[in-house]
Amino acid sequence: MKALVYTGPGTIQVLDRPKPTIQTPTDAIVRLLHASICGTDLHILKGDVPSAQPGLVLGHEGVGVIDAVGSAVQELHVGDRVVISCMTSCGACRFCQRGLPSHCLTGGWTLGNTIDGTQAEFVRIPHATLSLHRLTASIDPRAALGISDALPTGLECGVLSANVQPGSSVVIVGAGPVGMAALLTARLYSPSLVVMVDLDEARLATARQLGAHATVNSSAADTREQLLALTEGLGFDAVIEAVGIPATFALCQELVAVGGRIANVGVHGTAVDLHLEKLWDRNISIHMSLVNATTTPQLLRLVESGMLEIGSLVTHHFPSAEGATAYKTFQAAAHHQALKVAIDFETK
Amino acid sequence: MKALVYTGPGTIQVLDRPKPTIQTPTDAIVRLLHASICGTDLHILKGDVPSAQPGLVLGHEGVGVIDAVGSAVQELHVGDRVVISCMTSCGACRFCQRGLPSHCLTGGWTLGNTIDGTQAEFVRIPHATLSLHRLTASIDPRAALGISDALPTGLECGVLSANVQPGSSVVIVGAGPVGMAALLTARLYSPSLVVMVDLDEARLATARQLGAHATVNSSAADTREQLLALTEGLGFDAVIEAVGIPATFALCQELVAVGGRIANVGVHGTAVDLHLEKLWDRNISIHMSLVNATTTPQLLRLVESGMLEIGSLVTHHFPSAEGATAYKTFQAAAHHQALKVAIDFETK
Amino acid sequence: MKALVYTGPGTIQVLDRPKPTIQTPTDAIVRLLHASICGTDLHILKGDVPSAQPGLVLGHEGVGVIDAVGSAVQELHVGDRVVISCMTSCGACRFCQRGLPSHCLTGGWTLGNTIDGTQAEFVRIPHATLSLHRLTASIDPRAALGISDALPTGLECGVLSANVQPGSSVVIVGAGPVGMAALLTARLYSPSLVVMVDLDEARLATARQLGAHATVNSSAADTREQLLALTEGLGFDAVIEAVGIPATFALCQELVAVGGRIANVGVHGTAVDLHLEKLWDRNISIHMSLVNATTTPQLLRLVESGMLEIGSLVTHHFPSAEGATAYKTFQAAAHHQALKVAIDFETK
Amino acid sequence: MKALVYTGPGTIQVLDRPKPTIQTPTDAIVRLLHASICGTDLHILKGDVPSAQPGLVLGHEGVGVIDAVGSAVQELHVGDRVVISCMTSCGACRFCQRGLPSHCLTGGWTLGNTIDGTQAEFVRIPHATLSLHRLTASIDPRAALGISDALPTGLECGVLSANVQPGSSVVIVGAGPVGMAALLTARLYSPSLVVMVDLDEARLATARQLGAHATVNSSAADTREQLLALTEGLGFDAVIEAVGIPATFALCQELVAVGGRIANVGVHGTAVDLHLEKLWDRNISIHMSLVNATTTPQLLRLVESGMLEIGSLVTHHFPSAEGATAYKTFQAAAHHQALKVAIDFETK
Repeated sequence: MKALVYTGPGTIQVLDRPKPTIQTPTDAIVRLLHASICGTDLHILKGDVPSAQPGLVLGHEGVGVIDAVGSAVQELHVGDRVVISCMTSCGACRFCQRGLPSHCLTGGWTLGNTIDGTQAEFVRIPHATLSLHRLTASIDPRAALGISDALPTGLECGVLSANVQPGSSVVIVGAGPVGMAALLTARLYSPSLVVMVDLDEARLATARQLGAHATVNSSAADTREQLLALTEGLGFDAVIEAVGIPATFALCQELVAVGGRIANVGVHGTAVDLHLEKLWDRNISIHMSLVNATTTPQLLRLVESGMLEIGSLVTHHFPSAEGATAYKTFQAAAHHQALKVAIDFETK
Repeated sequence: MKALVYTGPGTIQVLDRPKPTIQTPTDAIVRLLHASICGTDLHILKGDVPSAQPGLVLGHEGVGVIDAVGSAVQELHVGDRVVISCMTSCGACRFCQRGLPSHCLTGGWTLGNTIDGTQAEFVRIPHATLSLHRLTASIDPRAALGISDALPTGLECGVLSANVQPGSSVVIVGAGPVGMAALLTARLYSPSLVVMVDLDEARLATARQLGAHATVNSSAADTREQLLALTEGLGFDAVIEAVGIPATFALCQELVAVGGRIANVGVHGTAVDLHLEKLWDRNISIHMSLVNATTTPQLLRLVESGMLEIGSLVTHHFPSAEGATAYKTFQAAAHHQALKVAIDFETK
Repeated sequence: MKALVYTGPGTIQVLDRPKPTIQTPTDAIVRLLHASICGTDLHILKGDVPSAQPGLVLGHEGVGVIDAVGSAVQELHVGDRVVISCMTSCGACRFCQRGLPSHCLTGGWTLGNTIDGTQAEFVRIPHATLSLHRLTASIDPRAALGISDALPTGLECGVLSANVQPGSSVVIVGAGPVGMAALLTARLYSPSLVVMVDLDEARLATARQLGAHATVNSSAADTREQLLALTEGLGFDAVIEAVGIPATFALCQELVAVGGRIANVGVHGTAVDLHLEKLWDRNISIHMSLVNATTTPQLLRLVESGMLEIGSLVTHHFPSAEGATAYKTFQAAAHHQALKVAIDFETK
Repeated sequence: MKALVYTGPGTIQVLDRPKPTIQTPTDAIVRLLHASICGTDLHILKGDVPSAQPGLVLGHEGVGVIDAVGSAVQELHVGDRVVISCMTSCGACRFCQRGLPSHCLTGGWTLGNTIDGTQAEFVRIPHATLSLHRLTASIDPRAALGISDALPTGLECGVLSANVQPGSSVVIVGAGPVGMAALLTARLYSPSLVVMVDLDEARLATARQLGAHATVNSSAADTREQLLALTEGLGFDAVIEAVGIPATFALCQELVAVGGRIANVGVHGTAVDLHLEKLWDRNISIHMSLVNATTTPQLLRLVESGMLEIGSLVTHHFPSAEGATAYKTFQAAAHHQALKVAIDFETK
């Protein structure tokens, strides 16, 4: 089969690889229809993720059709159309039992990291019962790529961690795919005010189309003042960081209201300053989390019922032979006005 | 009346002051039996608290007898023996209504800060209905000083913020009065393991007497390793910081287990490093809060029923004429093996 | 002033009454713009509420302008346009402090019950700080009548008690004003399925306009089967009873899914059968509550921001001189296709 | 092997049966050390449980040693000493994922109900990874029988459903094994008042030894008045029903305080009266649940650490050859001053 392989820092190639097979009774094999690229794939490509070694098939996001199931897989059958969760989980270890499958002792983020991933014609999915979710015919399979990772991340690490409620004031710093996913899922709770912050005007325009009440371009010298003015100086109940650098985390600390929460969604590479001398008495909390993807069934119900429109998240798609171009587009996403970039395999 | 007055950085004097009177219908006047000294009183004495100006009567902790009540005070009468809450609150403003009376628009930490405090023969208590709590005859009034501030702080900012539950593993960094209060109130939830950390062996011995399962002296080079070994390397579910300096907050970040919580109780004067590059994917949260003292009725019920023994928190007491000695003792608390230091007024 | 007075079972009259005055420092006097009629007013009119004696001015719902404030009232001024909460509460008693102001020791449901109510040119509001809420100019004052009682009741006793969440399946039994308020506020949480049940087709049509995904007329012999079919036989996560008779409560018990909740909103006059022999192992709960009206500030924020449209709740209005006609219309509400019926006072 | 077999209504026999074998990769075989008898075993014996047909090996409680494991079983090995959970669960179906393994689509209460149970020399355990829990050497294996069912039932269906908190007032109606388990686990939360109610004085004496602050014999005509007097007429925050008949459920409705909860633990055979006409405005809830046994790891941690003493729950034990006598003793438990009755297999 054809696969997008990380062959060393900065290089990715379409190579021939053997089709994967069932290795344990809980595995399934999925034939991909679509895969998509995540920011962490770019980190791997840069050589920043030690667990991901050259020779790895990339990708942890995908939609496909079940090609084979192991004998212990429950409720899934060959031919089922499924979305692949970015997290594989056993459901039984002490972390899974505590609601933390992202830390599953035999799973977690393995696809396209410690084992071959989804950017290939076929992928082996361990712990398939919990890691694959059937798609109904009513859901567009390419749009469903957002359910692999971006939407549960936005909802769990952003919206739920920040405790967005009807009537809340919400600010989301970062209007990339995960920030947009946080916006879409925040709106499920009817906040009174959602403000999106980014450097890119096109992304801010998209955010307004997707329901942001206001946007602020963070290139402005008075970003903080503009934002606080939107809350009459009180700050925001829910602050969602979706960038992952010290400057944005610093801004978040200035925006949080007494009694509010900061939810970190960004992947950070360095320590940041925490201004405890200003925050210690503000009755706030800071939440940081890897997505557990336990909300996936709920997200699918919302999409099926029409309560959640996710069609806008995947903006570009390329045939698998042009995988390298897909990566280049995603690497310059703002320039291309791209959010999620899909790689299509359903060409036969 | 006699009062302990902050007369400028580093100086405190017993001075004659006019007895306070009811100023609004929601006020009460309390005749003090006992007052106690808090770490923030020492900050004021150093001149570090701009809101507290020379001429101020110090203190926000006290037990006394109601001497007068305003016409709008509910359920309290002259002669009632009461504990004074460190927080005064109206119950009606938007912060009080959201469970954040520490940020009450017309209250909060006012006593011994922006208005005259409890270290005097009499004190005026604004918003008396919510700021005074009747003591039954069964509770020793001097021991009840712990209920003014230390115990609700340990419970709310420490134990509840850290979500201590039956079977939790808990580490408390700092064995001063508030750390000890966190220990006493953590034990209400039957954690399987509570470890206390401090530099002072005498305080660690007291912690063991009060129910800590283990103690670690943080002067050891391998403090972190010793502590993690107690959890088989997993870290602690609940980490309570009760010191307020960068080194202890740094230790807390190394001790928290996947899925756990850090509750900051210490008062910090500088920014600290937050190791988001290590913590972003650990599914943890950090909580920082000023005490709301909303658990005071619950604490009183627990003390009355014998479920919570608080007699060990107040270790020293001095007549009010020796207030300066009381302060000196508390300033060198570890040296004197002191926790809370009381000032007694009930000499008539 | 003119007032609608309950003069004995079945009779209501417009009578002259002295204008109320401030009696305690926490009182305010409100000049009414609009009042509305609640189902409990009809219970009083029938003579079914012993605490409400002949001579009482009826009503606990109203919108008006502050005419006078007592000296201890916070943040409210003469001339402010306000909505009157159906619950008056002190904010300080043990019930208020536990989040149960409906059981306030000196308040609760007093207006139009134990003291004169809102269906008059003026009303005295005890505990005004917490019992009045300022209306911004952007909110239509007549529509705001829904905020006095129906909307917080639908939200608190219905939606929150039933724990409606994004993706939930919800059934609301009873499409009167409170059932409609439950529908409007349930939709704030983006449930995947909301089904409304009633005997009246016009009300069901209104429910569909207000966002119900489906409706079922409970006159059908197979009501239960039709409803369960909408959930593929699983039952509903959230079941809201908004009628108050044994038959509807019985239906609710048949509709609740494993792990779900029944929220009782209806006012019941008799005991009902609870089928513990069928339900004991279903992991469900049943919630019954008087509205606390603690969500009123949140509801006002939602209306101000346009996230909650409440204009459809008040369907009829009459000048105060025609108060008796207003009552007759509300008594035959389904016949008149009425939800809330307003009485207008703003004729000067 | 020898097994206690239900051979028809009213009869139980020790019979020879083939030793069970692994049937699917997720199975394990356990050699029993001890089994115990539950109230539901008595229901089966009466012929009241249609799913349990003659020929069934009884029992869903047991402690043993792993004799064989299927290829997909995680973290368990031959020779491990384990407690068997009364609930078997897959961890992956929609109910398991929602925290409701008692309703697992391929598990739940199957042992000694729809498949052969634990009262035999060997038992096959489906879904072994989640259904078996390793016992450390420090825990007495016979005492650990309480962890199979009684203790998680008391904790989950009683204490957690009733939301017992530090300082709560608690009443437990029924001092049988599950009522006692509720008492032991309620005390983990340091309630200020726990009152036990039963008809049997010996059981009430045991309850006082296990930490009940007070007991009331429900044969008294003024049971309700005695109980309410213990709360100064306010009622109890947490009411736990551990009998399962209409009279005790009726009593619970009279005992619950405003804002409190009723947790039903008893297995009911008939409908009961729910006094909605008295309770609709009391802001209470009623919870009914089958045990999920998700607290088993927490309970084991508590026992291992010495925070929970469970030695008193198993009062009688008989060798397996005397299984019928064990049943007779448990059928007349109060007469024999018995709580849990064990059947011992470890005679070789």
